[in-house]
Amino acid sequence: MLFAMAEKIILDCDPGHDDAIAILLAHGSPNIELLGVTTVVGNQTIEKVTRNALAVARVIGMTDVPFARGAHRPLVREVEVAESIHGESGLDGPVLPEPTIELDSRHAVDFIIDTVMSNEPGTVSLVPTGALTNLALAVRKEPRIAQRVKQVVMMGGGVNVGNWNATSEFNIVIDPEAAHIVINESWPLTMVGIDVTHDALATEEVAASIAAVGTGPARFVGELLEFFGATYLEAQGFEHPPVHDPCAVAYLIDPTVMETAKVPLDVELTGSITLGMTVADFRAPAPADCTTQVARSIDVPKFWGMIVDALERIGEPKL
Amino acid sequence: MLFAMAEKIILDCDPGHDDAIAILLAHGSPNIELLGVTTVVGNQTIEKVTRNALAVARVIGMTDVPFARGAHRPLVREVEVAESIHGESGLDGPVLPEPTIELDSRHAVDFIIDTVMSNEPGTVSLVPTGALTNLALAVRKEPRIAQRVKQVVMMGGGVNVGNWNATSEFNIVIDPEAAHIVINESWPLTMVGIDVTHDALATEEVAASIAAVGTGPARFVGELLEFFGATYLEAQGFEHPPVHDPCAVAYLIDPTVMETAKVPLDVELTGSITLGMTVADFRAPAPADCTTQVARSIDVPKFWGMIVDALERIGEPKL
Amino acid sequence: MLFAMAEKIILDCDPGHDDAIAILLAHGSPNIELLGVTTVVGNQTIEKVTRNALAVARVIGMTDVPFARGAHRPLVREVEVAESIHGESGLDGPVLPEPTIELDSRHAVDFIIDTVMSNEPGTVSLVPTGALTNLALAVRKEPRIAQRVKQVVMMGGGVNVGNWNATSEFNIVIDPEAAHIVINESWPLTMVGIDVTHDALATEEVAASIAAVGTGPARFVGELLEFFGATYLEAQGFEHPPVHDPCAVAYLIDPTVMETAKVPLDVELTGSITLGMTVADFRAPAPADCTTQVARSIDVPKFWGMIVDALERIGEPKL
Amino acid sequence: MLFAMAEKIILDCDPGHDDAIAILLAHGSPNIELLGVTTVVGNQTIEKVTRNALAVARVIGMTDVPFARGAHRPLVREVEVAESIHGESGLDGPVLPEPTIELDSRHAVDFIIDTVMSNEPGTVSLVPTGALTNLALAVRKEPRIAQRVKQVVMMGGGVNVGNWNATSEFNIVIDPEAAHIVINESWPLTMVGIDVTHDALATEEVAASIAAVGTGPARFVGELLEFFGATYLEAQGFEHPPVHDPCAVAYLIDPTVMETAKVPLDVELTGSITLGMTVADFRAPAPADCTTQVARSIDVPKFWGMIVDALERIGEPKL
Ligand SMILES: [Ca+2]
Ligand SMILES: [Ca+2]
Ligand SMILES: [Ca+2]
Ligand SMILES: [Ca+2]
Repeated sequence: MLFAMAEKIILDCDPGHDDAIAILLAHGSPNIELLGVTTVVGNQTIEKVTRNALAVARVIGMTDVPFARGAHRPLVREVEVAESIHGESGLDGPVLPEPTIELDSRHAVDFIIDTVMSNEPGTVSLVPTGALTNLALAVRKEPRIAQRVKQVVMMGGGVNVGNWNATSEFNIVIDPEAAHIVINESWPLTMVGIDVTHDALATEEVAASIAAVGTGPARFVGELLEFFGATYLEAQGFEHPPVHDPCAVAYLIDPTVMETAKVPLDVELTGSITLGMTVADFRAPAPADCTTQVARSIDVPKFWGMIVDALERIGEPKL
Repeated sequence: MLFAMAEKIILDCDPGHDDAIAILLAHGSPNIELLGVTTVVGNQTIEKVTRNALAVARVIGMTDVPFARGAHRPLVREVEVAESIHGESGLDGPVLPEPTIELDSRHAVDFIIDTVMSNEPGTVSLVPTGALTNLALAVRKEPRIAQRVKQVVMMGGGVNVGNWNATSEFNIVIDPEAAHIVINESWPLTMVGIDVTHDALATEEVAASIAAVGTGPARFVGELLEFFGATYLEAQGFEHPPVHDPCAVAYLIDPTVMETAKVPLDVELTGSITLGMTVADFRAPAPADCTTQVARSIDVPKFWGMIVDALERIGEPKL
Repeated sequence: MLFAMAEKIILDCDPGHDDAIAILLAHGSPNIELLGVTTVVGNQTIEKVTRNALAVARVIGMTDVPFARGAHRPLVREVEVAESIHGESGLDGPVLPEPTIELDSRHAVDFIIDTVMSNEPGTVSLVPTGALTNLALAVRKEPRIAQRVKQVVMMGGGVNVGNWNATSEFNIVIDPEAAHIVINESWPLTMVGIDVTHDALATEEVAASIAAVGTGPARFVGELLEFFGATYLEAQGFEHPPVHDPCAVAYLIDPTVMETAKVPLDVELTGSITLGMTVADFRAPAPADCTTQVARSIDVPKFWGMIVDALERIGEPKL
Repeated sequence: MLFAMAEKIILDCDPGHDDAIAILLAHGSPNIELLGVTTVVGNQTIEKVTRNALAVARVIGMTDVPFARGAHRPLVREVEVAESIHGESGLDGPVLPEPTIELDSRHAVDFIIDTVMSNEPGTVSLVPTGALTNLALAVRKEPRIAQRVKQVVMMGGGVNVGNWNATSEFNIVIDPEAAHIVINESWPLTMVGIDVTHDALATEEVAASIAAVGTGPARFVGELLEFFGATYLEAQGFEHPPVHDPCAVAYLIDPTVMETAKVPLDVELTGSITLGMTVADFRAPAPADCTTQVARSIDVPKFWGMIVDALERIGEPKL
């Protein structure tokens, strides 16, 4: 049952531990109408992340949402996966069930285009939580979607912080040309970057509140966080893992979970040490026609409350 | 009536004076089976070049070949047209008739993918004579076409020569990322660059032999060459205009019209003064698995003979 | 009369309003032994900034310090001056007296080399407050100075902030190759960037405390700040002007005026939108052999106290 | 004994087998007045190439020409030597004698500046046959030399050919910023690139004519060519080694040994696959104020005749 004002979204992702939680959050929130999940190469190969997405759907009992497979590689660059964080499968940690639903026959690019064009203008939001390859291909193939989507809320990039190099974040670095295309398009775009998501840490307290839900999906999330926590400690020195991707979904559920600032945004494509940097120009107030904004802070307890709420609403699905 | 061994091609173009002659050459040659014509932004906007392509079809009486509209802008860069060469319409000079055929409902990208995937493997060649945007989008959306096309024969780039900057040619410079994608793909690729096409000059003798055909399409070509000759003299100092695009089609009709050399090929994406350069590495013999070759010379009389032959075969179409 | 522990420094500058105050601060502090002032193209041409430096010397009665003229242009880039901030003379506002001292016959590069090599190892600090051209030329011509200087304390760059483009500061952007050379050398280097100097604002209160000194040099500083304040408001929207350059001198007078952090530092040379960015990599603790540190904050009252103290010590020079 | 019209030159080199022959050619030609030899890091470290230069002086009995040591590393890039071509010593092959002359006390940069400024304007030519680091530092330290030198005749770069990457030559690639500085300065500059020097091959016939001279220096050259020939075959597949550097000296001896073309010239600094390319823009006739020209061809027999002549004039020096 959906609220009257539920946000229609397409979640474009590369599960990925935090992508899995983003799917779960979108599925479990009454404020979200999940029109489809599309996959993109990133944390792992397109075969692996697509299989992971379908497996997550089974874990959380999500049977009525179409899944479409997308780009197998970045636009220009070679494939680079994040095995140090997400493991060989892209979703290491829990034992994954065999998927039971089938992929949509369309490519993610066409799924996005068809969905945007067949819904009312200004009603569908795109929520990419991986590389921007699918969105870039879609808007280049069908430019009318730039005017027709409600907004793009992306997890990726960061203001004055990087994780894959000193200035840049993984989702952007692995396909900077796609990010440049998406960020420079005319649609309203909100960047939820790692400067914010690095506050969305899965502490012991968070883990405990998730465990307290007591369901299979909650245990699944617990196992995800356990693995993710270990790799984040090892690879990037984090005491608790930042859970990036659901933050973008959280903004769609309730924009007050974040503070945002309107600012011109661009992507560096030729820098020797800044490739893939998302450059926000804060030197002057944003011009009136600025279409981009960045998240500046997140209400962490509210965010984790949304995750727990979603898990409780999902309950114990019949597998 | 087609020869048993006619080459199946899709001509991807941006008419454009020389593109118009390339369409005509493909249509008029018994060695070519023209599966479709796709259009791409380049010499002019996608609207203009698409209209031009359809108008050319009417002039030459080509009613049974599908036309599909393609990309409206380059992947990453802003639109840059060649008005100094091709005029405001993209095909200035002759009076263009209203098109009588309708566009295929598919995007050029899908037309290319569908056509390649529905023909036997290794039978369809792609012949881009504009920017590589459509081909790049197609092979990123459906990677299987890289193994399935017979070959790509592109007009564009050049070995050690440029026209849009000191090192680079227009078709590459306006969408260098697309060119990088297409040239680095695994399909066999022949680059027919301006070092060769600058020999395919429409001299007075050539113009006379075309005029001697005496048909409407021949007069149309004459008018194209007259305008093209004037702009090429004005903008680039050429005494006679180089007629680039049909050279790529000529190679499909009879590869002996050119000498070629196998050589590793790449595209410069970050150069300050070499952006869009097609870099052929002649320092060592090409490795055995090299998939790229470049035209080194053209048999000019044979080339113009093909054009005249095509015009004669086309004759006087019923308009 | 100098303290036993006075820091020997060469001030390399491009006066420039804040450079003028930096000279004054160095001259008026008992903790600084000013071995020389060298000039470099930057805020204005080398002729103008050199004349300005000499004029400042007369205003503050500094007659025993050698001045040497340096680079007339950046290493690779064309000259770009900051007329919008410092006016046509480079020191607009006050009426400047005719200089009375003569330049050292040596080029700044040789003055720096000779001074460093003729003092005890580890005793001379270099304090550049303009582009890094002179220091880059010096260390490339005489590499032994890299081991022999005590430290480089530079005003320039910034952590996560720019003023000349979205990410980069003027002193770095106008000669990024020189900055790359200096920042990547083996000497200990402290970057005092605009993230810190943007706190060193000349408020009304500051202006009043300077005016209260009541001397000619204090009136001169007042006139500098008045002009500088007007241009900073107009060009960059600052309510009060940030007085960058003396901050670097202040660190030499008393390092406790700032908090610093050891961090690997580099300069972006090829970025399309990040050219000249000083990239500090905070992703992990600085390695033990890291030679670079950045200022993170400044004790603003202590800083302005140093300026007032210097003015009082300078008093009313005989002109 | 010098001719009235002998060309005054400073040879700036990194011996290096072909540099050694360039020194010998300059020394042995009555048309050249060799004002000095300066060294620069390149084929090997500055210590090694400087020692090699002094050893060559002893071999050929050159005792009255000053030698000055120059830059120990490129401006911005790390040191990269050509051990694959010139061996561990930079001059592998012959047994080198201990040098008997001492270095000038000045840095090469100051030696160049002093020499240019103390000779009549328009009389001194600079002949760099290594990286352009010394010349770049000199002209940035003393800009007046740009107007005062007669001309720069450089061995390096190439038109449409590379050896260190697909488009670029070693002397340029190892310090592209220095090359950019020198090539964009206002002095008249002739580039003798590898497109020309690749014709100056030391064939068996050449080796025989050198051996026929029968002196110690001739045997020394024979041993150089033997080693150089072996490494050029191994590293770059040349049947006979191209002897680059003396070509630049040959142009000073007699400009008719080459055909040249006036053309705008620049250096690529940011290309991913074209770094260090010397870009000659042949698209239009060179403008009247163009100061750069490139060699297009060389009279090979005349060139080798100069080498043999120089050897004969040098004779059998008293060691
Ligand atoms: Ca993700
Ligand atoms: Ca075309
Ligand atoms: Ca300054
Ligand atoms: Ca050399």
